[in-house]
Amino acid sequence: MTFRFDHATQVRTIGDGVFAARVHDGWDIGGNANGGYLLALVASALRAATGRSLPVALSCHYLGPVNDADVTIETSVLKTGKAFTTALATMRQGDRVIVTALGTCGDGLAMGAVEHSTLVMPAIPEFERATPRGETSAGLPGLMNNVDVRLHPDDTGFATGSPKGEAHVRGWCAFRDGRPVDALALTLFCDALPPAMFNLSGAPGWVPTVQLSFYLRGIPDGAPVCAEFTTRELHNGMFEEDGSLWNASGELVAQSRQLALLPR
Amino acid sequence: MTFRFDHATQVRTIGDGVFAARVHDGWDIGGNANGGYLLALVASALRAATGRSLPVALSCHYLGPVNDADVTIETSVLKTGKAFTTALATMRQGDRVIVTALGTCGDGLAMGAVEHSTLVMPAIPEFERATPRGETSAGLPGLMNNVDVRLHPDDTGFATGSPKGEAHVRGWCAFRDGRPVDALALTLFCDALPPAMFNLSGAPGWVPTVQLSFYLRGIPDGAPVCAEFTTRELHNGMFEEDGSLWNASGELVAQSRQLALLPR
Repeated sequence: MTFRFDHATQVRTIGDGVFAARVHDGWDIGGNANGGYLLALVASALRAATGRSLPVALSCHYLGPVNDADVTIETSVLKTGKAFTTALATMRQGDRVIVTALGTCGDGLAMGAVEHSTLVMPAIPEFERATPRGETSAGLPGLMNNVDVRLHPDDTGFATGSPKGEAHVRGWCAFRDGRPVDALALTLFCDALPPAMFNLSGAPGWVPTVQLSFYLRGIPDGAPVCAEFTTRELHNGMFEEDGSLWNASGELVAQSRQLALLPR
Repeated sequence: MTFRFDHATQVRTIGDGVFAARVHDGWDIGGNANGGYLLALVASALRAATGRSLPVALSCHYLGPVNDADVTIETSVLKTGKAFTTALATMRQGDRVIVTALGTCGDGLAMGAVEHSTLVMPAIPEFERATPRGETSAGLPGLMNNVDVRLHPDDTGFATGSPKGEAHVRGWCAFRDGRPVDALALTLFCDALPPAMFNLSGAPGWVPTVQLSFYLRGIPDGAPVCAEFTTRELHNGMFEEDGSLWNASGELVAQSRQLALLPR
């Protein structure tokens, strides 16, 4: 059996560093492929291009919407080092650029002596007791066919007309078909919750991501991951959103930051 | 009169999207060009390549050290949109890749109706009363010849053997020669303070940046900017550092995030 995420992030070599792939339907938000899904697709190509399995640091710029379409992903390796290989990947639908990303990939995370953390996993009901995203609103995003998002019960107000007045959302992410969560899955999950700023004063509509950066900070243990997203500054028509993902044990496994636009 | 920063970030077209530039000495940390300075250099090339003056979102991966050397910066425009143009820039010294960056540039920042901020400029003595970086330690980084960094007096312990035990540093940044602070200067200043984690338990040595992302959030007013950097998680030999830069009025003008490595 092939899990749906593996099927949806498959890349096939068709030339020197060029891959064919498909942006599958069912990983979308209102008919546009989710930004995390597109990141996972280019990360999959970056892993193939670098021959290294872990996406340690990814930088993705979003240039156009796409869904349910064949695409090509052109890659070029910029540097092969001892621990990391860095490459560029650009996804196109025909001539149209969809996303372009730089990725630094590795085979493992180095261990360091110094340990320090002030980033603590939020208190949240366990996965089984959190609020399924599907119970918060009708007309769920297509992505929710594949990703099982469960929210902190205090953070579902965006969907029911009573946002909590804070640009903050907590929840769990897992795959509906039971695929274990690995490093590649984190690139999807770092953009899978509703935008934190929806809990400020409601959803203003489509908030396109301009840029997203992703850091792998630990190795997922396969189980659902806890995710927390916060927006601290919204002005000049833009906002940032910082994300943190943890194993249920409390170990940080990823950080993300994105810059997104408000509708005019 | 040409200000030193403008001289040090000059790029000269030598072909289709290819620029010649020089990594000047005097913008280094212990003999390696500072990451913010290299970011400013590629941002300068990205502005020239896109024909847009503001670096709105930059993603930079650092692949090798350099200093006091002639380099080329090869650019290619990936998409020209209504508000933004996105391009790739790769700096090489001979065949060796130094940095590669994606940049989304614009002509102005859009104004948005919604305003929200929980990111507040820290309480800090004014520029004239803060502690000049040069008073904190002998053997200053070369960068300090050009950048006038003044620290919060509570945040200088890293230099005197009494780090405050918190991965956090606050200060002001300006140019020594009085050049007004503009958007390009922010790309330099987002990496100009001592690493926040030096205030945790002292400086472990050279902490190379893997990736840095920069968001322009406002327009500098020309005067010194206040900067605050925090590291929240240090493990597996890596740490992130989040930065915020403000006009003295308290208006946020930039955000940065970087992933860096601890010495083995």
